[in-house]
Amino acid sequence: MSVKVFLTEDEIPRQWYNLAADLPSPLNPPLGPDGKPVTPEMLAPVFPMNLIEQMVSTQRWIDIPEGVLEILYLWRPSPLHRAVFLEKALDTPAKIYYKNESISPPGSHKPNTAVAQAWFNKQFGIKKLTTETGAGQWGSALAFACALLGLECKVFMVRISFDQKPYRKLMMQTWGANCVASPSTETQAGRDILAKDPDTPGSLGIAISEAIEQAVTDKSGTTRYSIGSALNHVLLHQTIIGLEAKKQLEKIGEKRVDVVIGCAGGGSNFAGLSFPFVNDKIHGAEIDIIPVEPFSCPTMTRASFVYDHGDAAKMTPLLAMHSLGHDFIPPPIHAGGLRYHGMAPLVSQGIIEGLLTPRAIHQLESYSSAVLFAKTEGIIAAPETSHAIAAVIQEAKKAKEECKEKVILFNMSGHGLMDLSGYDRYFQGELEDYALPEEEIHAALENIKDLPKPQLVKSGKW
Amino acid sequence: MSVKVFLTEDEIPRQWYNLAADLPSPLNPPLGPDGKPVTPEMLAPVFPMNLIEQMVSTQRWIDIPEGVLEILYLWRPSPLHRAVFLEKALDTPAKIYYKNESISPPGSHKPNTAVAQAWFNKQFGIKKLTTETGAGQWGSALAFACALLGLECKVFMVRISFDQKPYRKLMMQTWGANCVASPSTETQAGRDILAKDPDTPGSLGIAISEAIEQAVTDKSGTTRYSIGSALNHVLLHQTIIGLEAKKQLEKIGEKRVDVVIGCAGGGSNFAGLSFPFVNDKIHGAEIDIIPVEPFSCPTMTRASFVYDHGDAAKMTPLLAMHSLGHDFIPPPIHAGGLRYHGMAPLVSQGIIEGLLTPRAIHQLESYSSAVLFAKTEGIIAAPETSHAIAAVIQEAKKAKEECKEKVILFNMSGHGLMDLSGYDRYFQGELEDYALPEEEIHAALENIKDLPKPQLVKSGKW
Repeated sequence: MSVKVFLTEDEIPRQWYNLAADLPSPLNPPLGPDGKPVTPEMLAPVFPMNLIEQMVSTQRWIDIPEGVLEILYLWRPSPLHRAVFLEKALDTPAKIYYKNESISPPGSHKPNTAVAQAWFNKQFGIKKLTTETGAGQWGSALAFACALLGLECKVFMVRISFDQKPYRKLMMQTWGANCVASPSTETQAGRDILAKDPDTPGSLGIAISEAIEQAVTDKSGTTRYSIGSALNHVLLHQTIIGLEAKKQLEKIGEKRVDVVIGCAGGGSNFAGLSFPFVNDKIHGAEIDIIPVEPFSCPTMTRASFVYDHGDAAKMTPLLAMHSLGHDFIPPPIHAGGLRYHGMAPLVSQGIIEGLLTPRAIHQLESYSSAVLFAKTEGIIAAPETSHAIAAVIQEAKKAKEECKEKVILFNMSGHGLMDLSGYDRYFQGELEDYALPEEEIHAALENIKDLPKPQLVKSGKW
Repeated sequence: MSVKVFLTEDEIPRQWYNLAADLPSPLNPPLGPDGKPVTPEMLAPVFPMNLIEQMVSTQRWIDIPEGVLEILYLWRPSPLHRAVFLEKALDTPAKIYYKNESISPPGSHKPNTAVAQAWFNKQFGIKKLTTETGAGQWGSALAFACALLGLECKVFMVRISFDQKPYRKLMMQTWGANCVASPSTETQAGRDILAKDPDTPGSLGIAISEAIEQAVTDKSGTTRYSIGSALNHVLLHQTIIGLEAKKQLEKIGEKRVDVVIGCAGGGSNFAGLSFPFVNDKIHGAEIDIIPVEPFSCPTMTRASFVYDHGDAAKMTPLLAMHSLGHDFIPPPIHAGGLRYHGMAPLVSQGIIEGLLTPRAIHQLESYSSAVLFAKTEGIIAAPETSHAIAAVIQEAKKAKEECKEKVILFNMSGHGLMDLSGYDRYFQGELEDYALPEEEIHAALENIKDLPKPQLVKSGKW
């Protein structure tokens, strides 16, 4: 019998883990338009104060409210699987484990934070949430969370994904949310972009601008913006994944993890699985921790660590992060969730510190890896998740070459049942590998060279 | 905290339950073209002998091979949930439990038998399986099972569903299967139907004919046909659902179940959940056991108990069952899995005996019930499953009227993420209720009046 580990109700983590408490050097704070650190009050039109407190907190453990747990419990704790059939196909001495986040009703890890954000907003008296979505995983998750908590929900979905994935809109509609293609004509930010480029595929940066604008201009004062990745509180909410994984590995007597892998667009599923292990690494454990991105949008592997906006219309504060520039529009690859110009500040700082070793993957390798995974472990992965699977297979092959019984853990962050048009194009031979050309990388970085520079804080320990 | 019950690896059922051992009266045997009971040898070109043995067995408990369990273990045991959020929305004193079969990689209960059938075929030396699929749940499940066991797989998908659900084909393709619309030009059965009616929406009966024809005409002798519902061995494999549910209810001290509900097209998910409880009922327990069907294809509630073929081209033996006629083409409702002219002989006999009390549901009620379920319990149900949910809500409301704390158990047989076009039409107001008119029911039954009559065996106990 293969290995699959559940946790009982009693064993569900009751607190989230905040890496900000343990990073060797402090984070560079977000900056306002005046170049000075933003205050919680400045963020208040966008987020409820209880979430702003989490965003800026450096407290190590933060309680998960019972009301949040009650909903998470619909699918959590998620099972930890050992991928015995994949190991066999690869003939590797490595042991491959994965957290199966695909079994949540919206099909990904995203509801871990969607439920938490919706719950804290509701506690704060908020009636409506606005948000962006790329591939649609996040928009679906927030629609789901808002349905269960009785909030109104408005989703701006990046045009290219909106057109590729019509079922995503229907999922959100079933949960009662209103989803429109971004850029839209509903906001000034959207109208400005459309005036310049009516045929734009859109970007997460643009969709974020639209969602924030609609939240802050609602005169009732009961609308806020909700974000699916990148910011500290989002990563915090996802750490339940890694905390569960640690308990599950302990439960089966697996004492050591050698490699932890997750795909990273804004960084939240990767951070959710890996941050509890980053804590171990800070305290001396030897672990390779690998966030994976596409060569077509190489934020972590090629962009600089700069102060940049999280959105195209510069509505967010300046964040210290790896960025290709707030108005960079990534090529229309199928892994819509990895089409983001920036990277979570906590993940970026982890890279600067040498705690994380990012890796880029080509599109065809990610699809061929996903097909092997589907035919061995049975789950059809989201195109984003496929990037993690490709890195896992690389590591398992390396373990074979080195004859080492490595323990590899990765985040099966979501299924790809709504993303099959990408698989179709792969099977038809219509997809090609595409690395963002050097001149485009340079041009993108040139665009943001006049923004403030973060202190490049590196403790030098890794 | 709400209630969700897992079983450990040690607690997984190791045997399937065979209702044929316990029915008060013996089943009418399948008949050949000569009107005499078919012998196992006559079925040998269609099925491998190890499955034929299960099909005709009256042994009460049949061992689940370790090789089958190893694959089922990828997602089994499935969780048993208490639907606390739905109960609250309905303000009902009833306790509503559901088995969540939607978390299997193909998204339904179907892989429970797909894995078993593929495994037994492989043991028998078979290299390729052919099958039919309606909504696509079954075809996807067999594609998945064949991928994991290294068998070739060919799926004939009912035209109306093939056109409504393009992603289904891509799922099957990702698992390496070949899926074509039925009727197709690949078989004589398909060509004959197309010659008569080029624009037919197709039917499960036609698709079954095509799949059987392609299996029995393969000269290598290593191709067999695999069926997704109706026959005894298929229902047998699904009983793992009900056996798990019983253990899970015991585990939380729930001593009594008052109502058991499942939707029924061919009958397998309903039988899988309910047959262990039918056994209890035979031995004296008071339980309402309700298979649910659409008013547009009212096999159980309106058709007679007759000897009819399982397919349009009369390639199957005559089965004693409720049938609207082997060439009846059901209206193109979205619940493709419920568009079948017949009903499993074991379920049919259970109805004749009075052990089961079938119920028909209208399309709009099934969609509105599914939307309420999605907004409370979070899962977007398949259109088939939505029929079960509608009956559950009827029962929960009845319990409220009667002020009774009834325990209701149902099978959440699959998610509807590949079926969202039906939800779309529902939201657009394009769907209507449609009950099959009396004259069409009479005409359908008139068509098969010359077929042999089964002995109407009824013990008279219920």
